[in-house]
Amino acid sequence: MEHPENSEAYAGLTVNSGVGPVSNINPYLQRNRFVRKQLTVNDYVEGILKGNSAILGQAVTLIESVHPDHQVLAQEVIEKCLPYSGNSVRVGISGVPGAGKSTSIDEFGIHVLKEYGGKLAVLAIDPSSERTKGSILGDKTRMEKLSVHPDSFIRPSPSAGSLGGVARKTRETIVLCEAAGYDKIFVETVGVGQSETACHSMVDFFLLIQLAGTGDELQGIKRGIMEMADGIIINKCDGNNVEKCQLAATHFRNALHLFPPTESGWMPKVLTYSGFYGYGIKEIWDMVYAYVKFVKANGYFEYRRNEQAKYWMYESINNKLRNNFYNNPTIADMLKVAEKSVLNGEKTSFVAAKQLLDAYFALLH
Amino acid sequence: MEHPENSEAYAGLTVNSGVGPVSNINPYLQRNRFVRKQLTVNDYVEGILKGNSAILGQAVTLIESVHPDHQVLAQEVIEKCLPYSGNSVRVGISGVPGAGKSTSIDEFGIHVLKEYGGKLAVLAIDPSSERTKGSILGDKTRMEKLSVHPDSFIRPSPSAGSLGGVARKTRETIVLCEAAGYDKIFVETVGVGQSETACHSMVDFFLLIQLAGTGDELQGIKRGIMEMADGIIINKCDGNNVEKCQLAATHFRNALHLFPPTESGWMPKVLTYSGFYGYGIKEIWDMVYAYVKFVKANGYFEYRRNEQAKYWMYESINNKLRNNFYNNPTIADMLKVAEKSVLNGEKTSFVAAKQLLDAYFALLH
Repeated sequence: MEHPENSEAYAGLTVNSGVGPVSNINPYLQRNRFVRKQLTVNDYVEGILKGNSAILGQAVTLIESVHPDHQVLAQEVIEKCLPYSGNSVRVGISGVPGAGKSTSIDEFGIHVLKEYGGKLAVLAIDPSSERTKGSILGDKTRMEKLSVHPDSFIRPSPSAGSLGGVARKTRETIVLCEAAGYDKIFVETVGVGQSETACHSMVDFFLLIQLAGTGDELQGIKRGIMEMADGIIINKCDGNNVEKCQLAATHFRNALHLFPPTESGWMPKVLTYSGFYGYGIKEIWDMVYAYVKFVKANGYFEYRRNEQAKYWMYESINNKLRNNFYNNPTIADMLKVAEKSVLNGEKTSFVAAKQLLDAYFALLH
Repeated sequence: MEHPENSEAYAGLTVNSGVGPVSNINPYLQRNRFVRKQLTVNDYVEGILKGNSAILGQAVTLIESVHPDHQVLAQEVIEKCLPYSGNSVRVGISGVPGAGKSTSIDEFGIHVLKEYGGKLAVLAIDPSSERTKGSILGDKTRMEKLSVHPDSFIRPSPSAGSLGGVARKTRETIVLCEAAGYDKIFVETVGVGQSETACHSMVDFFLLIQLAGTGDELQGIKRGIMEMADGIIINKCDGNNVEKCQLAATHFRNALHLFPPTESGWMPKVLTYSGFYGYGIKEIWDMVYAYVKFVKANGYFEYRRNEQAKYWMYESINNKLRNNFYNNPTIADMLKVAEKSVLNGEKTSFVAAKQLLDAYFALLH
């Protein structure tokens, strides 16, 4: 495999289907040093199926690459890993900045690995991470214990592009992680944007971290997210804060009773814990696994996984249909004018829409 | 206007731009009887601007017609009415069947007409009304007082087609009603489907009718709707039920405090009332008008109206882009196969989507 021709090709960045991930090191310098082996589709797939986390990491880099050849290669790798994926529990973990997500995930991860064995992958969806320079999971060291655990794989949110693009990459990464034997997947989101809907559409259980207190602490969380939660957990239930947290839990419990039952038939639960001191963590994961048992028994687990697979197919189609329209330069210009006419009350929204669509389909022919 | 040629044209159903609404009466019989005057665009617009409710009703029938010529005519009428629209308070009223919506709306309508003067139009969005034979507003007589009030205009939900189509017609009807001087618009929905999102996107204030009690009574309401409400009102607060309703109100109030503030800065309120006995109705409408004053002062009222106008333009475009794809017979066939491959784990959702899109755009060229 470590063939001189291949090394040349890589050094010159003349990518072929067997190319490895792009390196930031000057290729000409690299030529006289260690030359990284260039992996084929089969190398990737074999490595992943053997649970080689270095190769898994490289394959994820391939998924995140914007290079068209890398994308083709990535799709082939994903396709071959697909039959080996699916055997995991996927948990979405959301909470505003300051809720103590990193510490919590660190403790949760250590707990589930100790109690249930297996391997854990921690991923993230955060389309804002480019702007904020990787606000979540960007710094692996924030998860002190997990980051050095041999059975964990931590990967920050891909930072390129739109929510759709970022979510897609996370979802594809799940496939590879599962094929590599990671049977526990955490997907972290920040709780302030639309990432939660995307996250909710790829996990089995959606966990919302909250803090006690009304007002300021809650302002960050987006409306509608609470109703997605299968479990609400109130962090920092320690020291002087215990009573306040238990009161908050009661309030959340009462609030959840006003909501109708979830589609799964599961009644969302509210628990308190302390990520810092490690209190109440067992109860949280007993709840998650009780849920998994419950929905596997009533058939909802598989039903939902299927619905999610369909959702992402339709979502990808709809996204692309929209992008093709809105990114058309002629349409983009017309749209500005149309929007003004609508706001001035010169045209109804529907007439403006029709005129734009007629123009678009005429352009396509 | 009442020209023999026109009557002939109408009788033979050779519609032209001056045609009136389709009649169910055999045109050949009709020829020897009273022939309804056929209205031009200007006739419609003039009649509407004069507040002629019979002509308004005919124009709405035109909006609801599936005949392409009627649709062209309707769009011209709407376009000419558009500059005269907007001057109203639009209130969405939602609640599950059994919550007492009809009685409530009847009392609400009589109250606002008496207290605030002006004119009231009551519309509805219910895409299921065809199946259920007009489950809401289908029977005007359910609103005993309003249906005979000279300043009210009651119109059942258009029963044809998809949610998008039905919502569009309701939104267009609002334009005509406002041009006809109706400065209060109620839009009723049943609270069990996606109609609420559509309704929420065309009103200024969203009112949710609830009943006291947990469990059965609440099961009908859809998750996510509660978080849309600007006001929750608990009906049937009379007789032995008063204490229970007040307790329910407290629970809802506590629940709402756990939600973050709304975009408008308004804190949603919870009130109890009795639609049947007419208790607490003044307080509800004091709240609605306090809200209107509040959002007109902080600029949110106009901001939201503009956002809604844009929303409907984008929504119409996205709908049409989707329909054009999914209604393509070749694509529809391919989609069935693709869905199976995705569910069998043979293809990722994203690869399946890409293949379908490539085929679609090739077909369009």
